[in-house]
Amino acid sequence: MLASRSFSRLATRSISTRNPHAALARSESHSGEDVLFHLGLSSADDLSQFRDVKYFLTGGSRGRIRSLANKVATTLPSHVTGLPFGASPTPIGSTDRYEMYKVGPVLMANHNMGIPTTAILLHEVTKLLSLAGADDPAFIRLGTSGGIGVTPGTVVVSTQAVNGMIEPSYDLPILGKMVKRDTTLHEGLAAEIIEANGGAVPLERGMTMATDCFYEGQGRLDGAICDYDEAGKMEFLNRAHAAGVRNIEMEATVFAAFTKQLGIRSAVCCVTLLDRLKGDQHPHSHEEIVEWDERPGDMILQYLLKSEAAAGAERAA
Amino acid sequence: MLASRSFSRLATRSISTRNPHAALARSESHSGEDVLFHLGLSSADDLSQFRDVKYFLTGGSRGRIRSLANKVATTLPSHVTGLPFGASPTPIGSTDRYEMYKVGPVLMANHNMGIPTTAILLHEVTKLLSLAGADDPAFIRLGTSGGIGVTPGTVVVSTQAVNGMIEPSYDLPILGKMVKRDTTLHEGLAAEIIEANGGAVPLERGMTMATDCFYEGQGRLDGAICDYDEAGKMEFLNRAHAAGVRNIEMEATVFAAFTKQLGIRSAVCCVTLLDRLKGDQHPHSHEEIVEWDERPGDMILQYLLKSEAAAGAERAA
Repeated sequence: MLASRSFSRLATRSISTRNPHAALARSESHSGEDVLFHLGLSSADDLSQFRDVKYFLTGGSRGRIRSLANKVATTLPSHVTGLPFGASPTPIGSTDRYEMYKVGPVLMANHNMGIPTTAILLHEVTKLLSLAGADDPAFIRLGTSGGIGVTPGTVVVSTQAVNGMIEPSYDLPILGKMVKRDTTLHEGLAAEIIEANGGAVPLERGMTMATDCFYEGQGRLDGAICDYDEAGKMEFLNRAHAAGVRNIEMEATVFAAFTKQLGIRSAVCCVTLLDRLKGDQHPHSHEEIVEWDERPGDMILQYLLKSEAAAGAERAA
Repeated sequence: MLASRSFSRLATRSISTRNPHAALARSESHSGEDVLFHLGLSSADDLSQFRDVKYFLTGGSRGRIRSLANKVATTLPSHVTGLPFGASPTPIGSTDRYEMYKVGPVLMANHNMGIPTTAILLHEVTKLLSLAGADDPAFIRLGTSGGIGVTPGTVVVSTQAVNGMIEPSYDLPILGKMVKRDTTLHEGLAAEIIEANGGAVPLERGMTMATDCFYEGQGRLDGAICDYDEAGKMEFLNRAHAAGVRNIEMEATVFAAFTKQLGIRSAVCCVTLLDRLKGDQHPHSHEEIVEWDERPGDMILQYLLKSEAAAGAERAA
């Protein structure tokens, strides 16, 4: 039974950026507007259309976000989506860098692979939602990952992210100096997602490692360059497992650190497509992979349904 | 006058990976094949179709690679492209992660933004060309960048890449230990490209900084988070300029280091869309930006034309 209390927002709080120089930057641009360069949008567009966004969902793959947008459109009730019969979501802004969709209160965009491209999307979507005056939206990343000592097909709901050095930190050179940021994820949002799932999808809580390379960075033996051996790889993966890491992907550190810096509630939910303690290439059938691929989205759909039902009940009370 | 000698390949040398474990990795996969997961290709496909590749061109944007593929198809002579009347390039493999085209000896794919996604593409394209038995292909990255103290519209042909700490190194945690790799680019290939250009496009030689964030990592004042000020930003940009840096993008370090590790001739040619010493947002008109955007591709087309003409003359001699 889902406690609607856990979903309530006790105080209205607009999403904020932390930048005292925004006006200066705007004054330098060609037309005096604030350009969200990689989204293909700017402050000259009618950004008030994003004011009702309560959820921002993101994942690496273009195709997965497109299919998620269609699922959200057909699964959420029409009084939530606002979609009339015969309409379906179409991409917003430019599709050259990212593909973005909006269905009622749900904004979705793919971030491609890796921390830097995810950082660009986070900066620009946060500016977008801040300019639009959106009210305390939750940011959720869903994707695929390699598991460490978990049954393939399990969704790991991350407690915290670690970098490729197995340290709980997002490290970014800023003005030529290394800055380290906390990568703890929002406890309450994870609890709501897990509660809404009600055991439908197999899941585990655990730490998530974000690396800067899919091959050498994750200790794979099947890249074009590999200077270590199976024993070294296993020592690394076992060390990560002992530290609490349950899956490896390429974005969790920046996702956790960026949102924490700005007080945005955020969660990372990635399905594991293989157990890296047992191999590097996917030993599972195409059909299994396709089914598992759907799981993070299905979990989040349950969360959206229950969160929106609770919000509706609150408005009615 | 272009010396055909500089374009000749004195010895045939297949592109090689550096991985003694490839067979082990293959034996673990579902079907015993080597899966190039993010390209949507595998060793079970007929990879011999890639054997004639002599140039691999890559850049961040999907749209730019698509338009480059069409330009290569219409600019190179039909005896080089092999394209019959009425045919045009179509994407190869999956388009979910990257968009890849082949026109005669020219393979092209976009890498999206940032070092990690570029690393994945480099690993998989190198495995692809190695499995296909391609002969010493040149790898060229073309893209856009922010200039430092150069006239906007100038193409910087990189001598070397530096990271966000302004150090000439690609740093990657491997098995939990930080590994540093040399980022010097191939002198000879850069000279051939510059010679082929013959002054048509304004260019400069210089160092290129690759950062892991477009906003904070490049000292921009217009991100969602900005904890420094204009004076700090200028001090950083001036320090980079004094070290020899002429432009900033997000991929040059891994591109230089990866290719150098494997003895692949490589070059980075990025046009500068603004001078960061003068501002953060683009102060130029859409038309100017569109024209400049074409310059790296136009430069490389000249190189391809002259390199292929020289190769043809060599065969005839």
